Amino acid sequence: MSGYADVRRVRGLIEGLDRYTATPGRGTTRLTYSPEFRAARNFVAAEMTAAGLAVREDAVGNIFGRIEGRDPDLAPILVGSHLDSVPHGGRFDGPAGVVAGIESAFLFRDLCLRPERPIEVVALIEEEGSRFGGGLLGSRLLAGQLDPARLADLRDAAGVSAAQAIAAYGLDPAEARRAVLAPGSVHAFLELHIEQGPVLEAEGRDIAIVERIVGLAQLMVTVRGRAGHAGTTPMHARRDALVGAVLILAQLPDLARAVGSDAVLTVGKMEVLPGGANVIPEMVSFTVDLRAPSEAQLTRLIAMTCEVVGASSCNGLECRIEHQLYVPPTPLSGRICAILTAEAEALGLSHRIMVSGAGHDAMILAGLAPTGLVFVPSRGGISHAPEEWTDYIQLARGIDVIFATLRRMAGATVPEPAGRLQS
Amino acid sequence: MSGYADVRRVRGLIEGLDRYTATPGRGTTRLTYSPEFRAARNFVAAEMTAAGLAVREDAVGNIFGRIEGRDPDLAPILVGSHLDSVPHGGRFDGPAGVVAGIESAFLFRDLCLRPERPIEVVALIEEEGSRFGGGLLGSRLLAGQLDPARLADLRDAAGVSAAQAIAAYGLDPAEARRAVLAPGSVHAFLELHIEQGPVLEAEGRDIAIVERIVGLAQLMVTVRGRAGHAGTTPMHARRDALVGAVLILAQLPDLARAVGSDAVLTVGKMEVLPGGANVIPEMVSFTVDLRAPSEAQLTRLIAMTCEVVGASSCNGLECRIEHQLYVPPTPLSGRICAILTAEAEALGLSHRIMVSGAGHDAMILAGLAPTGLVFVPSRGGISHAPEEWTDYIQLARGIDVIFATLRRMAGATVPEPAGRLQS
Repeated sequence: MSGYADVRRVRGLIEGLDRYTATPGRGTTRLTYSPEFRAARNFVAAEMTAAGLAVREDAVGNIFGRIEGRDPDLAPILVGSHLDSVPHGGRFDGPAGVVAGIESAFLFRDLCLRPERPIEVVALIEEEGSRFGGGLLGSRLLAGQLDPARLADLRDAAGVSAAQAIAAYGLDPAEARRAVLAPGSVHAFLELHIEQGPVLEAEGRDIAIVERIVGLAQLMVTVRGRAGHAGTTPMHARRDALVGAVLILAQLPDLARAVGSDAVLTVGKMEVLPGGANVIPEMVSFTVDLRAPSEAQLTRLIAMTCEVVGASSCNGLECRIEHQLYVPPTPLSGRICAILTAEAEALGLSHRIMVSGAGHDAMILAGLAPTGLVFVPSRGGISHAPEEWTDYIQLARGIDVIFATLRRMAGATVPEPAGRLQS
Repeated sequence: MSGYADVRRVRGLIEGLDRYTATPGRGTTRLTYSPEFRAARNFVAAEMTAAGLAVREDAVGNIFGRIEGRDPDLAPILVGSHLDSVPHGGRFDGPAGVVAGIESAFLFRDLCLRPERPIEVVALIEEEGSRFGGGLLGSRLLAGQLDPARLADLRDAAGVSAAQAIAAYGLDPAEARRAVLAPGSVHAFLELHIEQGPVLEAEGRDIAIVERIVGLAQLMVTVRGRAGHAGTTPMHARRDALVGAVLILAQLPDLARAVGSDAVLTVGKMEVLPGGANVIPEMVSFTVDLRAPSEAQLTRLIAMTCEVVGASSCNGLECRIEHQLYVPPTPLSGRICAILTAEAEALGLSHRIMVSGAGHDAMILAGLAPTGLVFVPSRGGISHAPEEWTDYIQLARGIDVIFATLRRMAGATVPEPAGRLQS
């Protein structure tokens, strides 16, 4: 079967956007409000215009391109993703979803489709948090989850506040609260994103329809023992913090497996002090990143981790846990999930339901309107690296599902030929 | 029973030296050739003179105080330790041995003892390596194990070479090779040192006689896996370098126990990369410090460690070992060990034979002359910290053994009263 999306145009849009990087040859580096970001914004606006969209920029730099509905008073469907990147990232994380929106608009134009309900393609700022930290800034502002007054507090590595950067970008930060979208003003949000994981590739499937985004907890575990000379302290007289930490660490991966196949546990950051090759470690601290699809699973995983750590406070070691972050799981719209599935089926695409292990703009905008999220495969599961890759034909298949869903949800009809109306 | 050493004088010597620290109130910090070191040198020279010693300083700043022998042509017995400290260290590590030499000289004077063989009390430079790295600099120069030309290459944190520091200290670095002692020019070396471990205190013993210094190996283990997003990579699809490293680390302490009660294994330094809380570790590297009393045990411990690491190169992880250091065990003089034991016995002191897990000047000077080493208890096994402590009475008991051994080995006799010679 052949799909709707024009693979060559999709490739042109992705490659076109990828020219705007601060690190040519070393991945995509496009921090929000940077010169590269501004150039990408201009490119997006030009392509939106070419696709027949009415372009506007909101008070913080999110770009909207509108296909007017036959009933312009209906709340629009938003479709898109973010335009910023991590330092030395890939060309697909974010842009894939923006391009999905723009290509869908081209398809509406090519096929002379007129939606009953307006559609707005969006390109959002600062999802990665690479400039101002925290992340999801554009979607949080739209969804009213971030007080615009805080833009004066959020600062980049050089000490420039988001408000100052907005002003330098040519917008008025005092107007930022006008970017907030009122509840009920958006009918739905659709996002396409790369999976950033290995599952679709491993299973040889075309797309995943995300039913929920995992809940996330972050713990900091500290094991305190007693330092000592590596040569003069017999093994039996030691209170080695690393030996104690290893006993804990060895038990952790199995906890995630016990909770369920979609639960994950990662220790990514670890410090051993004082850190001399000939000194018995006095203190070891490490992070534990816990994610699970349901709140019940997540709280169970946290409890099991705390139990393992608590049981290790022996042999003169003192173990402590600090709870640093807790974000409950976000269910996405079951109705949109069903439509995405039906359209994927109709297109003959292999698909699966998936739980997203990473946060996306969809996670935030789900608080504003019913939201759907589609994943396309990531080669080797690699993301946030120059090697990030999705074949353009794979991306086009994901766009087909987005386009078909937009068409159905917006009530698009093919206009009668002019001649027929007269007969 | 009461011993020989004057506890009050011993305390005065230790406390007198401890005034010379760059960090008053925060431990002893006395780097070689520093103003504090120079002041301590002057104090030592003054006390040596008070004890009736003939004082000289060699070309690199080692201080010698000589009790002339009745036969001045006999090779002298050296007794002492080092005068430098680690940053924020304790008052006993090094000075205890220097004070043992000086107090012994006072006892020779007080008891009107005249040795047949000359005795030289020594205060050595730069054992800790805190200024120029490597350590054992004074003893290595004396024993001819370090080419004096290298003093121009060894540099401190500020980039000052040892040669420059020697010149600034008022000595001539060009004369450094005159500090080297000829083979046969020293009859024996005796050192008293704090244990820096918990064994004597735990066993309630007065002193340990060290029969050998452990052999030491240092390995660097690197486990390489694949980085990935902590949220989007299922547990079964991971190649987590830390999970692999933990499997290795969990097996290591038992290897030392399997080799023997005097073998120790320490992982003191560890790095997890890239080190983001939400990133699966790509690379983990850690040091393994291995020590054992015999070369057979040490090589067995190394082989077992290599085997554990080698067997862990699975699940897509790549494990490598780099051999960074190998120092074979150093046996000390069996004859001197027997004399020290006999004198401890005669003094009614509880004692044990011990293997030293740390290197000391004795380890180097054993290459120059038959060497003996006595340990006194360290409270809590703590050393290289301001809390380092040995009760003065405990130190005095160790000095008694050194003094009695010196007296026997140097063939000291009590001079006849002048009146009797005439009768």
